[in-house]
Amino acid sequence: MMESDPFWIEVGLARKLIPGMKDRLLLHAGPPIEWLKMSGPMKGAVIGAIIYEGWEGTQDGAERLAESGGVTFAPTHHHNAVGPMAGVISPNMPVYVVRDRKYETRTYSNLNEGIGKVLRYGAFSHEVIQRLNWMRDTLAPTLASTIQEVKKDKPGIALKPIIAQALTMGDDCHNRCNAATSLFLKEITPYMIRAGLEKDTLIESFNFMAQNNFTLLNLGMATGKAITLAGHNIKYSTIVTALTRNGTDAASWINGLGNEWFTAPAPIPKGVWFPGYNENDANPDLGDSAITETAGYGGFAMAAAPGIVSWVGGSVAYALENTQKMYEITYTRNRNFLIPFLDFQGTPTGVDIRKVVRTGITPTITTGIAHRKAGIGQIGAGIVSFPIEIFKQALKSYAKKYEI
Amino acid sequence: MMESDPFWIEVGLARKLIPGMKDRLLLHAGPPIEWLKMSGPMKGAVIGAIIYEGWEGTQDGAERLAESGGVTFAPTHHHNAVGPMAGVISPNMPVYVVRDRKYETRTYSNLNEGIGKVLRYGAFSHEVIQRLNWMRDTLAPTLASTIQEVKKDKPGIALKPIIAQALTMGDDCHNRCNAATSLFLKEITPYMIRAGLEKDTLIESFNFMAQNNFTLLNLGMATGKAITLAGHNIKYSTIVTALTRNGTDAASWINGLGNEWFTAPAPIPKGVWFPGYNENDANPDLGDSAITETAGYGGFAMAAAPGIVSWVGGSVAYALENTQKMYEITYTRNRNFLIPFLDFQGTPTGVDIRKVVRTGITPTITTGIAHRKAGIGQIGAGIVSFPIEIFKQALKSYAKKYEI
Repeated sequence: MMESDPFWIEVGLARKLIPGMKDRLLLHAGPPIEWLKMSGPMKGAVIGAIIYEGWEGTQDGAERLAESGGVTFAPTHHHNAVGPMAGVISPNMPVYVVRDRKYETRTYSNLNEGIGKVLRYGAFSHEVIQRLNWMRDTLAPTLASTIQEVKKDKPGIALKPIIAQALTMGDDCHNRCNAATSLFLKEITPYMIRAGLEKDTLIESFNFMAQNNFTLLNLGMATGKAITLAGHNIKYSTIVTALTRNGTDAASWINGLGNEWFTAPAPIPKGVWFPGYNENDANPDLGDSAITETAGYGGFAMAAAPGIVSWVGGSVAYALENTQKMYEITYTRNRNFLIPFLDFQGTPTGVDIRKVVRTGITPTITTGIAHRKAGIGQIGAGIVSFPIEIFKQALKSYAKKYEI
Repeated sequence: MMESDPFWIEVGLARKLIPGMKDRLLLHAGPPIEWLKMSGPMKGAVIGAIIYEGWEGTQDGAERLAESGGVTFAPTHHHNAVGPMAGVISPNMPVYVVRDRKYETRTYSNLNEGIGKVLRYGAFSHEVIQRLNWMRDTLAPTLASTIQEVKKDKPGIALKPIIAQALTMGDDCHNRCNAATSLFLKEITPYMIRAGLEKDTLIESFNFMAQNNFTLLNLGMATGKAITLAGHNIKYSTIVTALTRNGTDAASWINGLGNEWFTAPAPIPKGVWFPGYNENDANPDLGDSAITETAGYGGFAMAAAPGIVSWVGGSVAYALENTQKMYEITYTRNRNFLIPFLDFQGTPTGVDIRKVVRTGITPTITTGIAHRKAGIGQIGAGIVSFPIEIFKQALKSYAKKYEI
């Protein structure tokens, strides 16, 4: 995991780039789930994706299609992909491709839409679909031309250095990606200009990314997926290689146990609410974004990001405390990701199920909060801990597999 | 000072924009000084400026011209200008104009050249002069076109919000301007593109600024000058409105005492040295950049910028301690500039000479370090405290003026 070396190398449609992606397949965040068990925001994102793909034109039609089995569902993680919140990726959505130059794996993520009324939080109104169309028709081609220019000079955009720098600039690179987004734009802008795009397209794409502090979240997640994939499927290892939620269940993958899912009901985050909403409106946690914590940043690096408490709640003291607690359940300190405020100590990295079960401390992350009903969107951001059950189950399965 | 509202509004040649700027006049950092008393790096910058202006072609010629009185010297502060290190501004150097929209004052700073072998640290070789020529002929016109585009949409680039955000992103905005530079570029890039410049010029200018983490230092200093100017010349006030050094003397201005200079020998900073150099090579401190601390950021906000200790030395504990100590000698906590790590407390703002003299604690700042010989340049960065004498003198003068 420490030696993984992820680079952004490509942007294009999921159906062309993600292995196993096919017509009528929708990828989603978290462990496997059927339509009937999906929560409101996950259903909302599925409805939106069906309308976006043109498989049906209306909410009713989309619901009937999903219910009748006219759509196949699969977890993003089964395709080395990750998506924040609902994490729905449909065949004609653009995705980033990240290549691990050390281990030669490829991981994928969709493009970030911004906050509020967006597909990944379960919104699917006309404005949401139009934004997705624009991202496919304008933003993605801009980024594709840009990364082609980059590749004339170098193998791609190195992602670990962006995350490492951003952690010294007040980001946790999960719910605060302000610095990471700025650093990313600073790096790609000369190539965007060089690509010879139409001036208006260039400005429109730049502004869309610059005005969204979550622009780098998705690439940061594909980076986390590359890092954790580097440590996946290694015999005897007790390190967690995926932590994720689908809005109904929270789940983990354990290094030495392959793709076996351990699940328990997803908890509701404690948070800071957008005006007009409160905890009664909140859906249980969802999204693949806990891949950032699994890889050694995100909420585990809260001590690097005191400014985040104005977005997710808690206090600066809590931010420090959370990072300190995560050292108790992780294997080591990260060599790449340092926290200046803890005297440049590496972030807590590699959740060890043995330590989780022994201490009773579970991974605690920063997260976005979706309305529990389909069609509304983001209503806040907060902090949430994974349920202990998924680590206990994993430890039992481990003991059984390795006959301990 | 709190209500000052500085905007970047223009870029152009000093002789056209700085009131009182004229042929054969060189502005310099710090209190007034004659050629013979100037330190090596100040002399080096003067030599470079004379060659840059074409008043003489060689080092010898430039020295003779300066010695014979063929050049007039004046402190930047007498022209509402500020410059880092030697702070030399000659008539044909481009400068930023900052307008305080609250108090309708204008302040000025030159453009940042990068680090190492640069004029402001006393270097004047061919490469230094060529870079200055390029900045005049390419960078400044690019920025001038950009700010013209900005002004079609809004009154200019608001600078306090950039500094305020950067302080939540690990900058002190004096010796660490990484975030401020990124935020500035993020804001001006769409206007740079819109300005319709030649593609190569655009990329060259963008890269020059993006690859120099000190790009925003000079605009941040002009911001500090605007903020302190807002509080200058107010009867009875004991607040410091300028702290500056010319490489020979350190000096202060006090609010209620107008432009009376209080000076004492400039100290040598404690620092981190570029390879091959040590404290024996160091010149006494120089530059107007302590205007940042005078305005409530820079070293006073070290607690916001733990990452800075890898550049200026000291420890993270020291960074916290320095900010805490500065509260003892300042009047209030800043309403604009907050330090997340101190629970979003405002930065210590408004050095009060009464508190300095009573506690014996003097303003402590982050700084760059120049080689003591002309022609070499930057050899490190560090931390330095102003001498107590300049505050004692000021307090005596205050008592006399106000007949206390």
